[in-house]
Amino acid sequence: ALPMAVIAGPCQLESRAHALETAAALKEIAARVGFGLVYKTSFDKANRTSGKAERGLGLEKSLPIFAEIRESLGIPVLTDVHNDYQCAPVAEAVDILQIPAFLCRQTDLLLAAAATGKAVNVKKGQFLAPWDMANVVAKLVGAGNPQVLVTDRGTSFGYNTLVSDFRGLPIMAKTGAPVIFDATHSVQQPGGLGGSSGGQREFVPVLARAAVAVGVAGVFIETHQDPDNAPSDGPNMVPLSQFETLMRNLVAIDALSKAQAAAAAAA
Amino acid sequence: ALPMAVIAGPCQLESRAHALETAAALKEIAARVGFGLVYKTSFDKANRTSGKAERGLGLEKSLPIFAEIRESLGIPVLTDVHNDYQCAPVAEAVDILQIPAFLCRQTDLLLAAAATGKAVNVKKGQFLAPWDMANVVAKLVGAGNPQVLVTDRGTSFGYNTLVSDFRGLPIMAKTGAPVIFDATHSVQQPGGLGGSSGGQREFVPVLARAAVAVGVAGVFIETHQDPDNAPSDGPNMVPLSQFETLMRNLVAIDALSKAQAAAAAAA
Amino acid sequence: ALPMAVIAGPCQLESRAHALETAAALKEIAARVGFGLVYKTSFDKANRTSGKAERGLGLEKSLPIFAEIRESLGIPVLTDVHNDYQCAPVAEAVDILQIPAFLCRQTDLLLAAAATGKAVNVKKGQFLAPWDMANVVAKLVGAGNPQVLVTDRGTSFGYNTLVSDFRGLPIMAKTGAPVIFDATHSVQQPGGLGGSSGGQREFVPVLARAAVAVGVAGVFIETHQDPDNAPSDGPNMVPLSQFETLMRNLVAIDALSKAQAAAAAAA
Amino acid sequence: ALPMAVIAGPCQLESRAHALETAAALKEIAARVGFGLVYKTSFDKANRTSGKAERGLGLEKSLPIFAEIRESLGIPVLTDVHNDYQCAPVAEAVDILQIPAFLCRQTDLLLAAAATGKAVNVKKGQFLAPWDMANVVAKLVGAGNPQVLVTDRGTSFGYNTLVSDFRGLPIMAKTGAPVIFDATHSVQQPGGLGGSSGGQREFVPVLARAAVAVGVAGVFIETHQDPDNAPSDGPNMVPLSQFETLMRNLVAIDALSKAQAAAAAAA
Repeated sequence: ALPMAVIAGPCQLESRAHALETAAALKEIAARVGFGLVYKTSFDKANRTSGKAERGLGLEKSLPIFAEIRESLGIPVLTDVHNDYQCAPVAEAVDILQIPAFLCRQTDLLLAAAATGKAVNVKKGQFLAPWDMANVVAKLVGAGNPQVLVTDRGTSFGYNTLVSDFRGLPIMAKTGAPVIFDATHSVQQPGGLGGSSGGQREFVPVLARAAVAVGVAGVFIETHQDPDNAPSDGPNMVPLSQFETLMRNLVAIDALSKAQAAAAAAA
Repeated sequence: ALPMAVIAGPCQLESRAHALETAAALKEIAARVGFGLVYKTSFDKANRTSGKAERGLGLEKSLPIFAEIRESLGIPVLTDVHNDYQCAPVAEAVDILQIPAFLCRQTDLLLAAAATGKAVNVKKGQFLAPWDMANVVAKLVGAGNPQVLVTDRGTSFGYNTLVSDFRGLPIMAKTGAPVIFDATHSVQQPGGLGGSSGGQREFVPVLARAAVAVGVAGVFIETHQDPDNAPSDGPNMVPLSQFETLMRNLVAIDALSKAQAAAAAAA
Repeated sequence: ALPMAVIAGPCQLESRAHALETAAALKEIAARVGFGLVYKTSFDKANRTSGKAERGLGLEKSLPIFAEIRESLGIPVLTDVHNDYQCAPVAEAVDILQIPAFLCRQTDLLLAAAATGKAVNVKKGQFLAPWDMANVVAKLVGAGNPQVLVTDRGTSFGYNTLVSDFRGLPIMAKTGAPVIFDATHSVQQPGGLGGSSGGQREFVPVLARAAVAVGVAGVFIETHQDPDNAPSDGPNMVPLSQFETLMRNLVAIDALSKAQAAAAAAA
Repeated sequence: ALPMAVIAGPCQLESRAHALETAAALKEIAARVGFGLVYKTSFDKANRTSGKAERGLGLEKSLPIFAEIRESLGIPVLTDVHNDYQCAPVAEAVDILQIPAFLCRQTDLLLAAAATGKAVNVKKGQFLAPWDMANVVAKLVGAGNPQVLVTDRGTSFGYNTLVSDFRGLPIMAKTGAPVIFDATHSVQQPGGLGGSSGGQREFVPVLARAAVAVGVAGVFIETHQDPDNAPSDGPNMVPLSQFETLMRNLVAIDALSKAQAAAAAAA
């Protein structure tokens, strides 16, 4: 198996300057630590808990910034789409289209994403069993796009809480799609603050370590230079200042884990 | 409180003839038993488990049939929308727009539905706590549309299973919106048959009785003359031949329950 | 089916005077409303959240009080046992031995309870599916004691929360044992207050109404003249002053529900 | 932190010969791989799903065998107790008393175990949040016995299924007690086979790797030379022939994980 990739960035595209700065900082960390980086950011937070929460820059203003990050820094970019008609224009500016967890069963959105020919990363719905992702992958592959990734971001566990079931990682890997573990949203407490979602940032390294030891194609971790003042997902983003150490640890666990898997396969 | 309303019909709009026949049969039952009927049917099953499953007649062919049911039978019609751009055209042909559970947090869809001025019935996401529906209702009311209904259709409970938490009914009623209990989808076993969802039809009366005794504005129950050969939700639809008796029982429990509530309020 | 029975009383046996007073008050309510009463109280709270919480009067002091209630008031008494060696002495003073939910799979305790020849009421473990109670009933019946009752008191749902799945009532009824719904412990929030369990008293009538409409042999509801100052389960006990109205409502729903079931069986 | 310990052995004490053979085999593996071994086996399976299932050798016949294993092989022995009166005699023959998960809140059992002065390993109930174990630990420590270990063996997740929440490991570590991860019972499917519990042996290494990467004081893994014919827990025991490789992998992950934790503490 290949060394793990890292999908990282701030939850929300806040401004051109902020995006370019964060992307440049992550690129330097990736070079120092040695991992493949995909820059993630959202142009629209389309399903905020409250209708009054900040949604982001919007599609039109964001696409040129995505393009600029790719060109000036040479980093692949991932963003999420929420509607079938967004897929084609967004696909021109990014490398990977992401399907949000709530929307992972919306057939039209999946087909529109597949039709772009770009890679599609589907997050497993919080309401879905890991084995049910085989049907989701089949919708995309059946539409002629085999470049599919699947991501675990937690499963509903009572109210306002998610749980990460690590049996799901090898189960989803049976689809043939690379499996990503999203440590940021797995520690979200959906709606947990009444008018917004809470989170438990302190468990991001805990769950990320577990996932990498089990074996994943990559991790998804949102980061921000000042999470407590970020417009969304602040409670579960990792401070940028702690990102490099976390990545060093995960890369070392990943190397050990994949060496053990290779030895098992050879035996 | 008003006597309970009944939202009923086959899961999927199969053909003009089938829709008119079923609607006429339900209208007769409603008249005999004495309840307010809303006819429910879907023009598109937009989130089937498998990409190969039957999706329905589609928007264009369905709208004239919706209009015909309303005009020829004088029954209000409810159908679900999956995308912001569907709201305006669908609103011209129906009385109530329904937001599917997976989509209950998609702000653009809620705003587009609110903007039609028609009543909007939002199903609580399987991943949402009942108190979180206050934020959903606020999105619609805040957009100027106070005609909001909320529906419980079960909450994720482990894998491929839903559970109905009846504490949620009075909790959701605090939003001020009429609360509907969807007994059909509450007994669904999502993805439970591998390539499609299973269901436990035998528990529809069980859960519907419980909900009506607790106190609801209405029940939502799908019915079909031959559920085992229906194109979707067959395992959890009630046979049309059993519908009248079920309704008689529920109407009697509703009358008793609301008389008790009125006595308590007067005390 | 017979009219529903009511198992009621304070959580904990606080003193002889308190027990006799509460039992007498409940006996009067039962006579006025017209239901069969079983007096419930515990001589030992053997599994408190905290080791420092009040455990109760203890076995030795309680048995004569149980006997006195039976003799002076003519009410059957139920209490819970926690250890095999308690079963024989307790059985001499009460009519029904109750197996706590955490202990519902302890074979020795079940066998010792069965051996007394008294009726045994087993609470379904919070960790058990309703169909798994068939194995529990078989342990008792297989030991020669067919007088078995089963009680639902909620199922684990995330952390510090229970949910009542009313599909479980007809499922457990298939064992042949009368099914009781425990509305008091179903609204418990286990460990929810840190050092003790919380509760949501306001949902006791909600869940009790639902259970009776579905159809049960009886309800189990703890009550206290001053729940907020009770030594245990205060947050989920119903004030004695509200008990009679609640019972009147439940008895009316029960009569309607069983008349409907009889009509269905005759059809 | 110390290198991880391993609690291992067959679920059930089948015979003196079988116990001595398995213990000797595990001792050799421990010496080759380099880990501290505790031999685990049960003298009584006191809460089998079915009353007809094999319960084991029993207390009287088992104690001399426990003593023989300790003396002849020099390995510490752990076994589980189910009743307060078992604690004292069992404590004479073993090094660690284990409290089963269902019984983790039974105050008398905890106090009797604490009173022996031996180390006590308490399994977290499937119905308990990880933070609730602080109350359990306090019961034991408050009784004068600070030698407490806590073990995670999964949490109820819907019906007949457990889930391992790895956030629980650092949460339970805050009690000060060493935290063990029981990979064998975490993959149990309680009651999943109708008359007995199922299991998913293939996920033992998955969950064990995750736990060790997060950081634990030890792992608990049952093993058997022929699990498919073992009298209990066969579906979730690891074949003895695969045990050494699994341990080598876990020990390597443990070393890396603890080196990273030490570096973080030093920074």
